[in-house]
Amino acid sequence: MIQETSQVMAENIQQLADSSVRIDGDRLWDSILELGRIGAYYDDHLKLEGVNRKSLTDDDKLGRDLVVSWMKAAGLDVQIDQMGNILGRREGLDAEAAPVMAASHIDTVATAGAFDGCLGVLGAIEVIRALNDTKLATRRPIVIAAFTEEEGVRFGTDMLGSAVAAGRVSLEHAYALTDDAGLRFGDELERIGYKGTKDVRLDPPHAYVECHIEQGPILAKAGLKLGVVTGVQGISWQKITFRGRAAHAGATPTELRIDAGLAAARLTCRLREMVDSGRYGQLRATVGHIATSPGLPSVVPDLTEMTIDMRTPDDNHMAQAEKDIQDFLEELKLQQPGLGVEALRMAKTNQVPFDESVQKAIAESAEELGLDYMYIRSGAGHDAQEIAAITPTAMIFIPGEYDGISHNPREYSTPEACTNGINALAVTMVKLANEE
Amino acid sequence: MIQETSQVMAENIQQLADSSVRIDGDRLWDSILELGRIGAYYDDHLKLEGVNRKSLTDDDKLGRDLVVSWMKAAGLDVQIDQMGNILGRREGLDAEAAPVMAASHIDTVATAGAFDGCLGVLGAIEVIRALNDTKLATRRPIVIAAFTEEEGVRFGTDMLGSAVAAGRVSLEHAYALTDDAGLRFGDELERIGYKGTKDVRLDPPHAYVECHIEQGPILAKAGLKLGVVTGVQGISWQKITFRGRAAHAGATPTELRIDAGLAAARLTCRLREMVDSGRYGQLRATVGHIATSPGLPSVVPDLTEMTIDMRTPDDNHMAQAEKDIQDFLEELKLQQPGLGVEALRMAKTNQVPFDESVQKAIAESAEELGLDYMYIRSGAGHDAQEIAAITPTAMIFIPGEYDGISHNPREYSTPEACTNGINALAVTMVKLANEE
Repeated sequence: MIQETSQVMAENIQQLADSSVRIDGDRLWDSILELGRIGAYYDDHLKLEGVNRKSLTDDDKLGRDLVVSWMKAAGLDVQIDQMGNILGRREGLDAEAAPVMAASHIDTVATAGAFDGCLGVLGAIEVIRALNDTKLATRRPIVIAAFTEEEGVRFGTDMLGSAVAAGRVSLEHAYALTDDAGLRFGDELERIGYKGTKDVRLDPPHAYVECHIEQGPILAKAGLKLGVVTGVQGISWQKITFRGRAAHAGATPTELRIDAGLAAARLTCRLREMVDSGRYGQLRATVGHIATSPGLPSVVPDLTEMTIDMRTPDDNHMAQAEKDIQDFLEELKLQQPGLGVEALRMAKTNQVPFDESVQKAIAESAEELGLDYMYIRSGAGHDAQEIAAITPTAMIFIPGEYDGISHNPREYSTPEACTNGINALAVTMVKLANEE
Repeated sequence: MIQETSQVMAENIQQLADSSVRIDGDRLWDSILELGRIGAYYDDHLKLEGVNRKSLTDDDKLGRDLVVSWMKAAGLDVQIDQMGNILGRREGLDAEAAPVMAASHIDTVATAGAFDGCLGVLGAIEVIRALNDTKLATRRPIVIAAFTEEEGVRFGTDMLGSAVAAGRVSLEHAYALTDDAGLRFGDELERIGYKGTKDVRLDPPHAYVECHIEQGPILAKAGLKLGVVTGVQGISWQKITFRGRAAHAGATPTELRIDAGLAAARLTCRLREMVDSGRYGQLRATVGHIATSPGLPSVVPDLTEMTIDMRTPDDNHMAQAEKDIQDFLEELKLQQPGLGVEALRMAKTNQVPFDESVQKAIAESAEELGLDYMYIRSGAGHDAQEIAAITPTAMIFIPGEYDGISHNPREYSTPEACTNGINALAVTMVKLANEE
């Protein structure tokens, strides 16, 4: 089959694809469902099947094997780089020209659906299949990719594969990261057979485009088919640890307590007050994780851990919010003398604006396809924001059901929404790949 | 050895013990340390040895076996009742008279020290040994006991063994309780060989007295040796479950969120405001456990569970506090439409006043021993509050180090403090056992 496809390409290499390219929505949908079966689990609470395919697990390996087999079946030259990023190349008429790149990731959080990341990777494969179906070439080569550990839930740093590819994070640093069980990224990459030899540093492509689910309710509420993404919000993740003093709930007078859980609750409430104050523009703040120790009803918590996730498109607002949190931590110490407070930075990225010419190519594609769209800013982090550092980049969003819930088995976009998004990806890629 | 001791007792049955009885503090201390080795574990965080001997575990069985062997060695007639309560009887001159009872428990929480409960049981054994040493009898029989599952951490109901013995909880109800693994209390009791045949319903003794660590900082701060306990606060335990909607932290506008964690934080802060307001008298309120799901930094929590522990010596204050919490839960629903709230009652006991004549016997004993004391109310629940329903009851508290921390490997009372408490127990028991 691989040989056959390559022959088809060779025969047609002189004829340029144009904007009339259309993908096969059913074939795309089947691919999404098939990959989603790897790592599937049944969520007893939701009564739904979800996906748990964290990076460099056995299931991630199986998912990678499937993606590699599909890339090869589509005639791509597949290479694995030193970070385990999977790259598939389709030649262009001008083999020397910088390629157009489309990518995303297939690793998931522990309680995921089948769309986050996978749509972008499988959609890019579907674009290649569609080009093969029409027996058409592009002027520039096309490189599609699946980046390693975008979610960051296993080794603690999100967009890890693309960050190393774009040069923001060193390979040595990435290899040395460990998961909760103390397993090293480099060792796990080798264990699943995806420690490749291709140099991880990416030669800057001509342009980069990524299709992704919105992961929010905005497109659906607006009744629109597509989002042309103008950039990614700045993100700040911190882990705050409060150390109090364990004490008997019945026998310890209130004024003698150092209650680590109370401090965490006060910080959680303060964050929402900051957001509601309007003084920080479009700041969003989330406490996704709080856990108390020893966690017994009758013991004042001696240890409470919580995470703070803040996002804003304005780096100045972020700086102000971080400073005000720092000040509030000091206030909490004064409220309960003896309280220990540690703030650990887990992640921090400034806002990333996307390239206007790539946005324009996407918007024109949407118009040609008759798909109503809006400009939208991404609230989530994506591989695109790393690649934006080395090449003109933008993204395409499609709406999700159920208020755009993601990182959850309820995550769902309709077959129609997926088809729309990947058709827009196909037309955009052809436009960019035919540019001089 | 058992026979020998019985012979000694028989020889001396005519001579009454008096207030000059004194225990052997070293022997008591050795017993505390020896029992504490069963279920011992090393706490990596505290760098200290702790005890994990939850009820009806294999380690609980080993602890029980040791206690039974010590009771038998002290010449007691040992019986196991239907709840696994261990009772040891020393005859009095008047075998028909209602006995004086001293008891506590040897089960522990998962992260315990060696003193909570064990002091009362091993102290009562030491009183018997001291009476044997002096070859003296009492008018009334003495019954000492170790009650089953006082902590309530395994089967969810504290003071379980004494509650069934005193008739507040039925045997059938207790047998049907299950632990987190779904194991039934009745089955586990049988498994460890402690499902006895003696009728669990206790014939009301003449009086009941229990020595226990304070589990709080009050005696140590006051520089006093003993507390004469006037009663036990009312206790209310609730588990509150908030159900929100999982949503992406970056992509979901604040006004569209239903944040279960925020609701829990607001309730936690409100509880402290209630306590600080002074409107609820001596109310103490504790949120010992908060846990969010899915617990990821970038996901708004869809589920948050928290516990509320409230204590007060005034049942009216408790009723008012519970009502105001109920009202605040409604407020939280209005703040975030769609928020689900469930309040599950885990435990509720009214305040229990102790008997004044038994308190007086303890106070007189303290004076005779030259030990400075104060009257104090118990913040924690104890077996004594169950037995108080059927007989005149009071308790003796001894101070603890480190602000009286308990339910923690740091729990510690000095050998001197333990000796003082059990000497007071001995003198009090002799006084009560010689009463007409």
